[in-house]
Amino acid sequence: MAIISLTTDFGEKDHFVGAIKGAIYSETEDVRIVDISHSVNPFNVQEAAYILKNAYKSFPKGSVHVFGVDSERNPDNRHIAVLLDDHYFVGADNGIMSLVAGEMNPDKIVEINIYNDLDTIFPCMDVFVKVACHIARGGTLEVVGKPVNELKSLKIFTPIINTEQNLITGHVIYVDNYGNVVTNISRQLFENVRKGRDFELYARNYKFEKIHNKYSDIVNFSVEKPRRDDDGRRLAVFNSAGYVELAIYRSNLETVGGASSLLGLNYRDVVTIRFL
Amino acid sequence: MAIISLTTDFGEKDHFVGAIKGAIYSETEDVRIVDISHSVNPFNVQEAAYILKNAYKSFPKGSVHVFGVDSERNPDNRHIAVLLDDHYFVGADNGIMSLVAGEMNPDKIVEINIYNDLDTIFPCMDVFVKVACHIARGGTLEVVGKPVNELKSLKIFTPIINTEQNLITGHVIYVDNYGNVVTNISRQLFENVRKGRDFELYARNYKFEKIHNKYSDIVNFSVEKPRRDDDGRRLAVFNSAGYVELAIYRSNLETVGGASSLLGLNYRDVVTIRFL
Amino acid sequence: MAIISLTTDFGEKDHFVGAIKGAIYSETEDVRIVDISHSVNPFNVQEAAYILKNAYKSFPKGSVHVFGVDSERNPDNRHIAVLLDDHYFVGADNGIMSLVAGEMNPDKIVEINIYNDLDTIFPCMDVFVKVACHIARGGTLEVVGKPVNELKSLKIFTPIINTEQNLITGHVIYVDNYGNVVTNISRQLFENVRKGRDFELYARNYKFEKIHNKYSDIVNFSVEKPRRDDDGRRLAVFNSAGYVELAIYRSNLETVGGASSLLGLNYRDVVTIRFL
Repeated sequence: MAIISLTTDFGEKDHFVGAIKGAIYSETEDVRIVDISHSVNPFNVQEAAYILKNAYKSFPKGSVHVFGVDSERNPDNRHIAVLLDDHYFVGADNGIMSLVAGEMNPDKIVEINIYNDLDTIFPCMDVFVKVACHIARGGTLEVVGKPVNELKSLKIFTPIINTEQNLITGHVIYVDNYGNVVTNISRQLFENVRKGRDFELYARNYKFEKIHNKYSDIVNFSVEKPRRDDDGRRLAVFNSAGYVELAIYRSNLETVGGASSLLGLNYRDVVTIRFL
Repeated sequence: MAIISLTTDFGEKDHFVGAIKGAIYSETEDVRIVDISHSVNPFNVQEAAYILKNAYKSFPKGSVHVFGVDSERNPDNRHIAVLLDDHYFVGADNGIMSLVAGEMNPDKIVEINIYNDLDTIFPCMDVFVKVACHIARGGTLEVVGKPVNELKSLKIFTPIINTEQNLITGHVIYVDNYGNVVTNISRQLFENVRKGRDFELYARNYKFEKIHNKYSDIVNFSVEKPRRDDDGRRLAVFNSAGYVELAIYRSNLETVGGASSLLGLNYRDVVTIRFL
Repeated sequence: MAIISLTTDFGEKDHFVGAIKGAIYSETEDVRIVDISHSVNPFNVQEAAYILKNAYKSFPKGSVHVFGVDSERNPDNRHIAVLLDDHYFVGADNGIMSLVAGEMNPDKIVEINIYNDLDTIFPCMDVFVKVACHIARGGTLEVVGKPVNELKSLKIFTPIINTEQNLITGHVIYVDNYGNVVTNISRQLFENVRKGRDFELYARNYKFEKIHNKYSDIVNFSVEKPRRDDDGRRLAVFNSAGYVELAIYRSNLETVGGASSLLGLNYRDVVTIRFL
């Protein structure tokens, strides 16, 4: 059965998501709808891209991923359908898709042009659902739009490496449910620049000299001690998405706080790694 | 496959929604469950009605819509199943259904009376699920209840038009995920009273002289300027549900604020439109 | 069709839940995924257990319930799959499962040992999904792990009865979406100790002398009065899960407050019942 996933900034409360699901089932009976997230920070294309990029990969090939963030069509914001990495994506060409693609080249990009109500106030419902269902039923991209060559690119969000190749300057791109702070520095970039050297990672006035592979790597289980003794320690870790993340061990934003609140790190803050 | 949708004030965290879904699948294998919303403000029947009314319409005809808000059965609050606009609805007769129906007349209303545990503390699970599954399997309303003639009506929530027909007095009925403020003044009512005249819309001390058809209509794309230059401008718009909405362009409640916080407009506040 | 339910502390926003659903559908086409909750307070095993225990029972026998809270594998935290009450459970043996089991004895417990990436930073995705899909396809527990005899137990969370058998000392174990405060005192325990006696329930400086069967039992519907007249009254009730709950009638945490805020009762606070 075809899968259509949804990634939006519509929130969990309003009627938007329910209406879209109803419209999908009205259009196509034989489909499975999967929510990726509806809690993207409103109009935040980088958050949307981070969530979508790290979720779509585990779906079956051929899945259709609708993203509904900042979707109103206007001269700066066309609607696109994309074939990339054997998955289909439908949304507005506002930078999300180029961030999801990263180094990969899409196999196909079309600008959606066939529907009468392209200028609707609710394009995710009136345009993206129809295109997604068309693809889910086995339809081709050429039928719903005209081929275009490039995605709109937001280059400002990539880490910078200095000419001496001993400093990576990255940014916080995401704060997760635990308050853990995710940077745009990937394990691959880190290892490429590192070339086996020691390093110091700086975030505000905090220094980290190791990047762990899982959270509990900081705990010495051979020593008898109270079970919660390591809670609240800070660490750097390669997260499940493959990015450098600054975390507080077993943190809880609502009670003791997380890395974002305890270390004072927020979206777009600078994180640097200096190689020695 | 039959569809059962759920609209409740149970929230996203508690076991209630999961338990209900388990009960539905225990009762009927061949059904699709769709969440419309579980984040209705507790006991807020107008919010529930706004969400349900604007979501159900896009579902396939014959879908069954369960609403679980203020559902305890008591002498003031009977349980009903309703056929309206080719959709089925199951819940308590607490005003939600009459708000959803609006001008439409239900084709059938029954008061649910067949289950032993009608006085349960969890009627959505113990009563509504059984009725919804009965309908989803093709059962008739007559089997689960006795016909009644009228829905409980909450008339207090409709806009008022003065006798001179030059003033509509409406209210804020909903604040959405972006902080946009939705009034109970529909496009149809507005146009009926307007008769082509100019107008001034007032909300607190803010005046609006135009109601747009989509958010980015306020942007002049022919002028070169920074991409975010219009963010934060206020506007009135007919939203996707067909109601007058006061919005802030690309607003974000968590950062810069939305219309609700920036204009100081909350649930039940007055909005007036004066025709010139 | 097999059912896999999910109970996690991943939140509604991050990519984790979407990624897991994609992975399940990649592994097994013929399965139904049901969200129980993703809003468990981070690392709170008692909350996770309360939610899971009260949701799983309504699912069809043979359902598979994945719980993803505090799941990193380490010497203190093994991964298990359990058959209990004709349902399957997959997660970490961190106390959740023994709280779900309560007085019941599992029919089978295995420590998961077959996957190469057991030490992953994302065990819910890399281990639990595979085990759950194996079970959903009809596979046996013996194939994925070696039998073990006992679950890790967290005894600290059970109510205490004094030797005179006239006092139950319980705790708040959960605050629900309405701010209602749930204790760990079950109806069964209460009735067993009560033996027909009168009683006084104390929570902070509040006294309750009756435990109702539903919320609106406190309203006298034979008296004509304004519809909202009883809103805000406090009461004790046996909730739908069968536990003593302290509630505010038609409470709303966002506006007037709920039992948690109005009575000042929080997670782990003491509640006592004295029999006279």
